[in-house]
Formats: sequence, C-alpha cells, structure tokens
Amino acid sequence: MSEFVRNTWYMAAWANEVPEDGFLARTFLDEPWLILRKSDGSWAMMADRCPHRFVPLSRGKRKGDTVACGYHGLTFDTDGACVFNPFGREVPPETKVAARPIVEKDGALWFWPGAPDRADPALIPDFSFIDDASDARDHLVMDVNYELISDNLLDLSHAEFLHVETFGVNGSLFECGKQTVETDASGGLWNKWDMVGSRAPVWAEPIVGPGVPVDQWLHIRWHAPASLALYIGMARTGTDRNDLVVPPMANPHILTPKTATETHYFFTRGHGEEAAAMARRVFLEEDEPMIRAQQEAMKGRDFWEMRPVIMPSDAAAIRARRKLMQMRRDEAIEGADAV
Amino acid sequence: MSEFVRNTWYMAAWANEVPEDGFLARTFLDEPWLILRKSDGSWAMMADRCPHRFVPLSRGKRKGDTVACGYHGLTFDTDGACVFNPFGREVPPETKVAARPIVEKDGALWFWPGAPDRADPALIPDFSFIDDASDARDHLVMDVNYELISDNLLDLSHAEFLHVETFGVNGSLFECGKQTVETDASGGLWNKWDMVGSRAPVWAEPIVGPGVPVDQWLHIRWHAPASLALYIGMARTGTDRNDLVVPPMANPHILTPKTATETHYFFTRGHGEEAAAMARRVFLEEDEPMIRAQQEAMKGRDFWEMRPVIMPSDAAAIRARRKLMQMRRDEAIEGADAV
Amino acid sequence: MSEFVRNTWYMAAWANEVPEDGFLARTFLDEPWLILRKSDGSWAMMADRCPHRFVPLSRGKRKGDTVACGYHGLTFDTDGACVFNPFGREVPPETKVAARPIVEKDGALWFWPGAPDRADPALIPDFSFIDDASDARDHLVMDVNYELISDNLLDLSHAEFLHVETFGVNGSLFECGKQTVETDASGGLWNKWDMVGSRAPVWAEPIVGPGVPVDQWLHIRWHAPASLALYIGMARTGTDRNDLVVPPMANPHILTPKTATETHYFFTRGHGEEAAAMARRVFLEEDEPMIRAQQEAMKGRDFWEMRPVIMPSDAAAIRARRKLMQMRRDEAIEGADAV
Repeated sequence: MSEFVRNTWYMAAWANEVPEDGFLARTFLDEPWLILRKSDGSWAMMADRCPHRFVPLSRGKRKGDTVACGYHGLTFDTDGACVFNPFGREVPPETKVAARPIVEKDGALWFWPGAPDRADPALIPDFSFIDDASDARDHLVMDVNYELISDNLLDLSHAEFLHVETFGVNGSLFECGKQTVETDASGGLWNKWDMVGSRAPVWAEPIVGPGVPVDQWLHIRWHAPASLALYIGMARTGTDRNDLVVPPMANPHILTPKTATETHYFFTRGHGEEAAAMARRVFLEEDEPMIRAQQEAMKGRDFWEMRPVIMPSDAAAIRARRKLMQMRRDEAIEGADAV
Repeated sequence: MSEFVRNTWYMAAWANEVPEDGFLARTFLDEPWLILRKSDGSWAMMADRCPHRFVPLSRGKRKGDTVACGYHGLTFDTDGACVFNPFGREVPPETKVAARPIVEKDGALWFWPGAPDRADPALIPDFSFIDDASDARDHLVMDVNYELISDNLLDLSHAEFLHVETFGVNGSLFECGKQTVETDASGGLWNKWDMVGSRAPVWAEPIVGPGVPVDQWLHIRWHAPASLALYIGMARTGTDRNDLVVPPMANPHILTPKTATETHYFFTRGHGEEAAAMARRVFLEEDEPMIRAQQEAMKGRDFWEMRPVIMPSDAAAIRARRKLMQMRRDEAIEGADAV
Repeated sequence: MSEFVRNTWYMAAWANEVPEDGFLARTFLDEPWLILRKSDGSWAMMADRCPHRFVPLSRGKRKGDTVACGYHGLTFDTDGACVFNPFGREVPPETKVAARPIVEKDGALWFWPGAPDRADPALIPDFSFIDDASDARDHLVMDVNYELISDNLLDLSHAEFLHVETFGVNGSLFECGKQTVETDASGGLWNKWDMVGSRAPVWAEPIVGPGVPVDQWLHIRWHAPASLALYIGMARTGTDRNDLVVPPMANPHILTPKTATETHYFFTRGHGEEAAAMARRVFLEEDEPMIRAQQEAMKGRDFWEMRPVIMPSDAAAIRARRKLMQMRRDEAIEGADAV
C-alpha cells in the first residue's frame, strides 16, 4: 500500500512562484517534478527525470515549450514526448517522461498524481477567500510528515501551549471552549472551537471595553489529503456574531507531501518583512520543532502502531486520518499505485 | 534478544547535574527519560514521552511535582499518572507514562530498567571512595558502544600506546608487567597489572632518587553492565606497598549506554579548568577516535562475528563480555524485555 | 554476487603519492588498505585493520618494514604476519592481516584484489604515453559510483552540453560526428568520435585560417574494470591526419571504486595551479554534480532495474557494462568472492 493517496488534488505551487520562460522544479510524493507555463498560458507538469540517464531535466534548459536535458541534450515537450536527439537522430519510442494534469484555481496550481481521467477540477477545494490586497502568498518546507501537521492544525487547542507567546488565546479556550466536529457538502471536515461569552484577550480590552464579554471562534476546514482553511473571528457577545471586534481572518494552510518526512506548507500572511518573520517564528520555531520531536520519537513507526491515547479534542484529526487510510486502502485494491 | 541488559543498575547522572525545580532529560538504552528531585527530596524517573502525541515531556514545564506537556497540556505526576487534561477534562485510563526505580548512592543516581521488584539498592557497586574535596564529578558522551569502552578500560596496556604522551607508563608495563584477573565477593571482576621492582617514570625520579626501583599498579574493577573503578599506585619496592611515592588514585569510569553507538561516561578528575581539559584530551582525542575507528570498521556487525584474535591481555575484557552475554540470554529466556 | 570484479588490476595510487618511510592509507572496494614502499624498493599492500580489535593500522606507526598498531602495539610485517606482541609475547597463529599483490607500472601502482596466482602484470593496461614533462599526475575522489563515471567517459557527446563552457566542441560533434565502437588485441574497448571536414572551433580559426576545414577526433579506450585513456586530436582535412593543428593529447582517466558510491579518479593535467583548478572545475563542478544527481535519482537501485532508454551513442558504455556484469557472474560461479 502506497503511503500517499493518489486520486486527489494536491497543491503544487502558487502560480506566481513559477518563473516566466523557465520552470519550477519541486519534489512531491517523493518524486521530482518540473512545472512550467507554456507560451499559450496553459500549465504543464512533467517528471523531472530524463529516461536516458535519470538526471533531473531541471539541470538542463527550457527551449520554447520544450526542455533539453543538460547531460546529452535529449529534448522533451510538455506532454513528455522526446522531440529531439542531437546524436543518432533516431529516438526509441519509449523515450518519454510522465506528465500530470495541472490546473490553476484561486491563484494556486493543483496537480492530480492518480488516474488522469478522474482529475475533475470541480473537486479542488475552495480558497477563493484569499485576498491578495491583504494576504501575501508564502511557502516553506517543514521537515515532518504531512499528517502530523494536519493533526496539529485539526486540534487548535495546542495554541494555548505551543503558541502561548505568539497568539495563545488567554486561557479562554479551556475556560469555555466548546468543540464541534462536522462535515459540509463539499466533503470538507470542520473542527470548530467556539468560546461564547468569553473574557476578551488583553489586546482586545481597549477595543471592547473592560469586562465586556466576547464570542471567539477558531474554525478549521480540512479536505483530503491535507488542504486546510482556518477561520478566526471575535464579536461582542449577544450580537449574533455581527458586531465584530476585529475583521475576521481566513487563511489557507495547504500541505503537500514532499517525501514521507518533509512537507510543502502553503499559507498566506500579511504583506511585508515583519509578517513574514512572524509566520516563520510560529511555523518554524514553535510548531515544527515540536512536530519533529514527535516524528523522531516515532522512529519510522506507523501512528497507530504507537498506540496513541485518544482525547476528545482529537475527534477531527482522527476522522481525517481514517479518511486517508480508507482512501489508501481503496486505491491499493484498485491498483491505483500503478498509475 | 535485546542488546541491553535490563535487570541491573545503571548510573543515570551525578545528583548535582539535576537542576532544582526543573528536570534533567537524558536518553538511556535508546529511550528518552526525565529525572527530577521531588519537593520531598526523593528522586523520580519517568519516560520523556507523552502517550498522546509522543512528544518529549521535557519540551513542557515542571509544575510542582508534576510535568505538563508543552503540546496540549496533559499533566503527569512522577508515578506516570495523568492528573490533568485542560480540554475535555476526562482522561482515558491508559494515559500514563512509564516510571523507573531511581536511587542516590555516593552522589550518583542509579536506575533499574528491568523488573522493579528485583531493584535491590544493595546491588549498586561501591563508589564511596569518591572524595569531593579532591575530585570533580564530570560527564561526557562518547559516540561509541559501551562495551567497546569497557574493552578499552579492561586492558590498560593500551596506555603504553594510545596515551603515551599523556600518561604512558614509560615502558614498565611491558618490561615487567604481570597481569592477574580475579573476582571479588561483590561480583566485581578485577584486572590487575602489577609492576614490581620497575624503573620509576621520569617525573618520579626526583622523588624516589636515581635508580631506586618502585612497585607500580594499575588495578581496574568492573561490575556489570559497565561500572568501573580504577586504582593507581606507586610505592618504593620492598616496602610492602606502604611507602607510597605519591598519594594513590581511585577513579570511577561508569558507562551507561545512551544508544547502541553512544555512551554516557561518568568520571571524576581534579578540580579546575586544566584538569577538565586534560580529561577531555585523553577521553575525546585519544580514546574515542580509536574506539570510533574500531566501531566504524565493525560496520554494525557483532563483536564475535568479526572473529577477533584473543590475546592473553584480553582475559578480563572477554570475561566481562561473556558475563553480559549470559545476562542477556537469561533475560531473553525470562522475557525480561517485556518490562 | 559481489558488486565489484575481483580478478582484475585496479590502480591504487600514483607511485609519488606514497610518502617515503611512511605509508598511504586508502579505501578500495569498500575495504581499508595500507600501501608502503619497503626498504628494498619493492611495494607492499596490506589490510588496514588490526585483527585484534579491528582498528586501522594506519593509526599506528611504521617501524622499518613493519607497522605497529597504535592501540595495543601488535606489529605486522608486509606479508601480514604478526611479528611482535609487546604483552604476553605469544602470538596466536591466526594473528595476521591480508596482503595483496601490488606492482608499479608507468608510474602507477596496481593491485589485484582477486586470486593472487592469476595476478599477471602483463594484463595491466598500457599508460606509457604519460609524459611527466608535460603531464602532472593528479587524484581526486568523486562521490559517485565508478560505472556511472565510465558511462560518462564512454559517451563523450556529453561534452557538447555539460562542458560547453569549458571544452564544448562547437557543435561539430552533432553536425558531422561519426561514432565507431571497436576492440583491440589488448582487450581494450574503443569509442571513437570522428569529425571529418568539420568547422574549426573558434580558438583554432586563427591557426588554420578562416573557413579551412579540419578533422577532429575524440577517441577513448576502456579496459575493465574502469581504466580509460582519452586521445584527442585535430588536423587539417585531407592531410591523412598528419598536418596537426595542435599537439595531440592523451590522458589517463583511471577509476577505482572506493565504495559503491565513491570513486578514486586518477588523471593527468598540465603542470601548475591553473591547470589543477581547471581540471577540478570540469570534474567537480560539471561532471560530478550531474552524475551525483543521477546516482541520487537511482536511490540505490540497479542501473538495469531503472530500465534506461538506450541511445546509439550508448553503444560503448553498454558493452563495458555487459563485460563487467559477465566478469562478476563468472566470479560468482567460481566463488572468487571468497578470496
């Protein structure tokens, strides 16, 4: 059984990460890929490995809508066909590289590593809430397995401990947090923490006035394999969440496995250096070291094999893990790995 | 068969290494542990791994005589029981971490990783000779297997070669060294090198006078698994070892496996920076590189599988290895690994 | 089946690399060896591993024509016999280290890791063309498998791409290159690229005159396991290759596996720092990164298991690979691994 689900959309990159007239080389699901925008504006994704001597095509050069290998010059079009051999001219028919469906939606590029005929763009989760006026699109790599990051995001109660210095919610979460787990029509799984009539955090007191209670919410949405959206809000209690204290926030947290132990993390944050540094502090100095310590303690063993204690707050994370396990099982039965 | 003996006392730390009101996190036998002194002055040792998401509890905080996990706040007492869950309140009964017997003796902390009911403190080897007035307690980690260090210590003839520039004994050892291997009532195995009527080393000549013969001895005591004591002395020949040239020395060399290829080395040396540096020179610039070269040459193979040539000077080291092998075999039969 | 051919000559070092009165320690075929020139001028090669505790003898000292271990002083002659034990005097008869036939030819030292009775020096390939007046003998280690470097050298068409900035041949190779693969009486396999009536490279135009056609050739000779000789020349077309434009070049490219993924590379280049730097640029900044990317893409899998596409230009490389595979198979049947 493959460790990765294949018949699903994964985010490959923000569209603006791909250099014009060049390509972006990136590893997904433990395989090297090359992404480029063709001269007609459409996107292409091809294996970053020459079938002749297995070197990365990204060590070669883009020539129009083809890529020439930097070792012996074999040249491939974006469908993966070899269109030129500088020596010997003839090209054996098996000289081709794999290609994958890739589409742009909401400024993100999504690819489908499984059976191409099932690659329905309507299945791509909605991230249309991203607002480039306020949000900078960003990307980093965490040296941990993607499901461990999903676990982290699907139980935001950890913010009270791990992020207490950056955005801990002042204890309100365990004073009056109520957790709801539900699904929506798009297949999204939601974990909602709601704090009704809670103490306002210190920074909000001057805004709401002393002792005035607020409703706070931390809602996170998950789509398989690990594309998450986080919604945060605060309103004066009793206003049906209409009298907002601060503008509501919505952020993508989209995870794509680089390998079994490394993950591409796509997110947005405010514009500017300070917001970039703050995001890195939270992700790389708070979350990642803790999750990496978890991964190291697991020593390559499966999560369930470790017999974790399950807490009520794990409800959403466990459902997400079960869903992925079911998808992998289904694909193993169908032989989807062979794609 | 486990690679480590379990029903035996291992040294965990010098008592003065454990911070008051905090804890000491250290890996032994390839597992992470946390050591603390409780408010009543007694010692506790608990697994440094939260049973919820496997992260080290040492990334959390000590709160009185409990430790709170830094990820989601689960809090454990020193018996390993979970005494608080900030979210959801109820705690599944399997929410606990392992604890181990740990006792202080001669200023060292000793733990017993095997069956707790066999953990008799009377079995801890005697290191009461340590004199804090003259000896500084020290600790380092060597990146080699602990049995290879035992081999090194149980055949001190290597001092004539490996330590010739630091404390080589001037050739006396192979001029007139006589080796005796014996056991004592405490289960200690002794390797004794005696040099009767030997030439005094150059540094001792001004003390004893030119040409005056001396008796020298290098005696080392081993208790399983690898707790050694070294005794060194020099007396004028014919005085029944009573007319000592310099005060006799006794030093602990106590080894506890961190992993199969890393070892905690507990020792004493003179007070002050110079003595600390000298000890590190001998251990880390003379012994460790040689033993690591040995370990690398073994490429993970078992010592006996390498078919080593056995010399008469190996008598004690071989007996110690056989004793450990017998203990591991006995434990495998008894199922002690399951503890 | 061993991954290395054993009944063949491998180059160990340039004779001038071995320090007088000392020794050279080097790993070949994943085993550590020690090379020295005896007081009578003959060469010796012995295992760099003491049979007592497996440490490298090269951590000890040369004493005349013997080597004393730096751990406990066991001393070996160059036939591998233990001739002295400082402690206990008696030496168990199995106390010996392996020795290998080693001979000097053309300023290079060659050893035979297989059955010693088959080690016929007449089988050593000819490198008598090396001219110390013009050629500096050099050595480096590449972190790639030796067969991948052979592949590289046996298809010099890669120069048009990988070395286009250092010595690309101006496109002539694919304009009019003709490839011939043949063998010679010595067992040498030749891959010859000939460019008859080709455009002269830019740097040669002032010499030959504008528009004057030249014949160019790139001939490379391979002997198992991976001892190659490169011949390069340029003459005015129609002169039967007698009217040379520049002096012809002949260079050794001799490869000896250090391990399965590291290779000793013996070569010559012009005297002086600039030529040394240029050689390193070509080898370490152009060839090695590409071949290492290839090796990483292979992830330890066998070359054939990767199902490479075979191009006409691979003819020589494939024949060399098949020859080595046949040799390994023959040795597996004969049990040559047991040597």
